[in-house]
Amino acid sequence: VALGTVVVGQSGGPTAVINASLAGVIDASRLSGSHVIGLRNGIDGALRNQVIDLDEVDTKALARTSSAALGSVRYKVKPQDYDAILRMFQAHDVGLFCYIGGNDSMDTAARLAELAQERGLALKVMGVPKTIDNDLPHTDHCPGYPSAARYVVSAVRDIGLDCRAMRRVYVIEIMGREAGWLPAASIMARDATGAAPHIVLLREHVWDQAKLLAAVDEAYGKYGHCVIAAAEGFDIPQVATNSGVHDAFGHVRLSGVAAHLAAIIKAERPALDPVANVLGYMQRSSTLGRSDVDAEEAYQVGCKAVELASRGATSQMVTIERAVTSPYYATLGSVPLARVANMTRKLDPKYVLNDRYDIPESFLDYVAPLVGELPVPVRLY
Amino acid sequence: VALGTVVVGQSGGPTAVINASLAGVIDASRLSGSHVIGLRNGIDGALRNQVIDLDEVDTKALARTSSAALGSVRYKVKPQDYDAILRMFQAHDVGLFCYIGGNDSMDTAARLAELAQERGLALKVMGVPKTIDNDLPHTDHCPGYPSAARYVVSAVRDIGLDCRAMRRVYVIEIMGREAGWLPAASIMARDATGAAPHIVLLREHVWDQAKLLAAVDEAYGKYGHCVIAAAEGFDIPQVATNSGVHDAFGHVRLSGVAAHLAAIIKAERPALDPVANVLGYMQRSSTLGRSDVDAEEAYQVGCKAVELASRGATSQMVTIERAVTSPYYATLGSVPLARVANMTRKLDPKYVLNDRYDIPESFLDYVAPLVGELPVPVRLY
Repeated sequence: VALGTVVVGQSGGPTAVINASLAGVIDASRLSGSHVIGLRNGIDGALRNQVIDLDEVDTKALARTSSAALGSVRYKVKPQDYDAILRMFQAHDVGLFCYIGGNDSMDTAARLAELAQERGLALKVMGVPKTIDNDLPHTDHCPGYPSAARYVVSAVRDIGLDCRAMRRVYVIEIMGREAGWLPAASIMARDATGAAPHIVLLREHVWDQAKLLAAVDEAYGKYGHCVIAAAEGFDIPQVATNSGVHDAFGHVRLSGVAAHLAAIIKAERPALDPVANVLGYMQRSSTLGRSDVDAEEAYQVGCKAVELASRGATSQMVTIERAVTSPYYATLGSVPLARVANMTRKLDPKYVLNDRYDIPESFLDYVAPLVGELPVPVRLY
Repeated sequence: VALGTVVVGQSGGPTAVINASLAGVIDASRLSGSHVIGLRNGIDGALRNQVIDLDEVDTKALARTSSAALGSVRYKVKPQDYDAILRMFQAHDVGLFCYIGGNDSMDTAARLAELAQERGLALKVMGVPKTIDNDLPHTDHCPGYPSAARYVVSAVRDIGLDCRAMRRVYVIEIMGREAGWLPAASIMARDATGAAPHIVLLREHVWDQAKLLAAVDEAYGKYGHCVIAAAEGFDIPQVATNSGVHDAFGHVRLSGVAAHLAAIIKAERPALDPVANVLGYMQRSSTLGRSDVDAEEAYQVGCKAVELASRGATSQMVTIERAVTSPYYATLGSVPLARVANMTRKLDPKYVLNDRYDIPESFLDYVAPLVGELPVPVRLY
């Protein structure tokens, strides 16, 4: 099926491999003989008619570039925008729209596909999954997540070694507001008994100050240091938030889970003087943590979206289906956009321990093949 | 000269390559036929008689391990400690003490060397430089700095691409309390006109709120995003600190340069909603940012300390002497410990611009060969 012009957009928070998906869309479009253009800043570019010609782009170099090279957007599409978007697509003779993004973007894509069908337009719409949160349903995992997980694992391991050498307590705040997939990955940092993280706090865990302090005491007592991997979405009730804890300079510091936990530990265990740190944007867009599996899969899902459309598919999101865990092997499939739009896949409850602030080792079977190998540190004591 | 037992310790903040220096000391000691032991947690291990036998260590794997594998320490040695340390060394038949550390450690090493000489002991003492702050004098640079700089450059570039895609303002807090070598390196992140960092704030710069806001306005107006690389030691006078700025939740947040700057920008330019982030321990101990030049030099300075001692030297710190900048070539030398003990090498004033918050491009000649090559991102607009 001839596709006409292919238009592609990127949406939501960038990742280390979202441009690999873009490169895949471009390469597959070229193969199918299509002209390919990009929307500047996602759907915003459709509304402002800002497009970028992608026919001559060096896709090999693009695939290695982190963040969203077309620019991204968090704009929530309004009902009256859809007409304008479809008109813009018609003006550019668009036969296929590939939207690389998370749940919100899949909703936008689903509605565009529905509207195009209602109006009898020859427009296909395909979703290309992307999110470090790993919270899209019906796919084993989402491109972007393995690289973010690799960064987190490496960070927790290296910070853990640092804290061990310096006998420190350190609270690391990890992205994951709605689902704990990313902070859960931190347990892969453990290369030996007593290795970081000593405590993992997910949104799925329930706050219990005594339990946390007991865990800190135990880790610090046994191993001389303590590293806490805390999800940014971990919920500390307001009563704790307003405990009036002050930092060393007498300043109140309450926003941010890591800072908050550090303040509580400092108040209750003044000798420990914990450091609080937010990993920040590096988690999602650092080239340093890129996973090989992720880079390859992100590229392939981009290609697959175009291939499926050229065989007649529309209103689908490409999925990754794990066939074998060890050695890791996955194939690509697809699912109707309507089944993923605005849905959030929470961390499977079997991966949340309730008796302690931790994740079961069984989670490693899931996450380790995605993260890939990491150098094993030498421990001299 | 036969050295007897070689004892080695690590001190101060860990780095990504401090274990490469340790591996160098071990390998060179083995070559000289010496037994080699490590102090657990630096001088603390001498005072507590906690040693680790290093004769059988896999030095190749050790050299790749980040942080201080012997454990480190920030203990300030007291006058009465020196006797205890020398007695401990005599009990272990120590002929050479190699101390891997920064200015404080060089002071400890210098005093031990002096005391040993006074007492006619056959103890040699050698200093192995280590600091991400790069503030030891009489050496072109310090092992640890190139890797920290590489991490910072990569972080500022990737965060810059992320902010460009998301049209954000981001303040990155970079280590460097006394000297701006590390935050200055951030300018190497610029791969194109308008690339991050747009503003660099060093301790060596003078606070001027209007100047900062004008620079933010200019960058955001021209490039649609703004990344500020701020040294943790950048000095915002108390009058600004107490301006009563609150965050979105009504919380006062004043400690930390990045958070403080973000609060000021948010108060004066509410539409910008800046993100504040502290790079944290990742800067100093992440394996992800390791520089090849740094890993090799760190290993060589460790070897050199033992080689010089076996040829009769004592009370010296190994130095790196740059012979050629492009292509980079350096040799190793040494300087008396007394000339580096407790000294701080500030960033050369020629590298501080006063008319704007920035660093001159000439600094790249100094730093780029140390950081090494980084992949060049593709820019589509």
